[in-house]
Amino acid sequence: MRVPRHIGVIPDGNRRWAQGQGMTKDKGYSYGIDPGYKLFKLCEKEGVQEVTFYGFTTDNTKRPEEQKRAFIDACIKSVNVIANEDAEILVVGNTKSELFPKELIKYTKRVICGKGGIKVNFLINYSWKKDLESLSSGDGTEKSLSRDIISSDISRVDMIVRWGGRRRLSGFLPIQSVYSDFYVIDEFWPDFKEKHFYDALDWYQNQDITLGG
Amino acid sequence: MRVPRHIGVIPDGNRRWAQGQGMTKDKGYSYGIDPGYKLFKLCEKEGVQEVTFYGFTTDNTKRPEEQKRAFIDACIKSVNVIANEDAEILVVGNTKSELFPKELIKYTKRVICGKGGIKVNFLINYSWKKDLESLSSGDGTEKSLSRDIISSDISRVDMIVRWGGRRRLSGFLPIQSVYSDFYVIDEFWPDFKEKHFYDALDWYQNQDITLGG
Repeated sequence: MRVPRHIGVIPDGNRRWAQGQGMTKDKGYSYGIDPGYKLFKLCEKEGVQEVTFYGFTTDNTKRPEEQKRAFIDACIKSVNVIANEDAEILVVGNTKSELFPKELIKYTKRVICGKGGIKVNFLINYSWKKDLESLSSGDGTEKSLSRDIISSDISRVDMIVRWGGRRRLSGFLPIQSVYSDFYVIDEFWPDFKEKHFYDALDWYQNQDITLGG
Repeated sequence: MRVPRHIGVIPDGNRRWAQGQGMTKDKGYSYGIDPGYKLFKLCEKEGVQEVTFYGFTTDNTKRPEEQKRAFIDACIKSVNVIANEDAEILVVGNTKSELFPKELIKYTKRVICGKGGIKVNFLINYSWKKDLESLSSGDGTEKSLSRDIISSDISRVDMIVRWGGRRRLSGFLPIQSVYSDFYVIDEFWPDFKEKHFYDALDWYQNQDITLGG
């Protein structure tokens, strides 16, 4: 089986899921922590080398206070869960804002947890605009596109999997995603099932990888 | 009906279509000209204000000589067909390379054809890398992201429609596409049908537009 080297994860639908359960929207996020752990274990098992979770963006922080607190809290817990595993964690995002959780500052340079191994990136208070704006300090060469951006330690993404049915990137790593194959799962992220992961892998088998050629 | 203001078109599958017809791959491109015209007329009819066609990229120019000649020729003809209509044409791409068709140089600043109206952009010998590299001359502000890029006269894309079944952007306008809804049609571009366009519009009705919020 040809396994994507790097999988991007857009864990969408937490709020819609909560509403469907008769809860308020903010209650959905905590149900997204366990799916993240399960997906991580599957990636590890199948030999995926890098996985990037779309935590929250600076765009998201315009949401109501109780939602904001809930997703920030879920993100912190999600990182901590992986930190107990064998993994190499990196958190990328705007650390200058007070919305960036202090608990995660230590992961803004890659940290080897346990025996290390699979790279796990979390986009936390991430902004695609800030990521691209950083190119202004570059020298305008092709190398600069991977070297001078804020997310420079995150590699090209082979496959992006989005839960919750939306078919868009919503600002997810624009440079690393230019050639990514994009797989959408209609179910909401808290309803994550092992089958979703394997369906995505099966689908990926049939994609020709041309990198634009 | 809520019509997307700006539609991006990735007219893929010309070569696979040709093979299915028992032709050599290069023969497929000329069958993509008429679909482009039909799609343009539908956009005009439904009040779409801007449409961007993915012509060819600098990545594509690594293909065999006869394919290269065929897609360059089809692109020139596609632009000329629209130039006979009421439209405002812009061609964006690397003009410094000899692969950029001289016939299209005059469209590298927007040209009002007939009575003008719908903006029609063609990406010709386009490179997402060059587009982003141009940010190095910017001042690192948010405005720079839309002002200083090579494709600065192409606006945010609301919906991208790709023919030929692949679910990826393949370097299509990374900045303008960060929030785009992405609709994929399995049929090949030369098999374009009016129904594809209306299916995409119908689907678009059900997308919430949050721009990342």
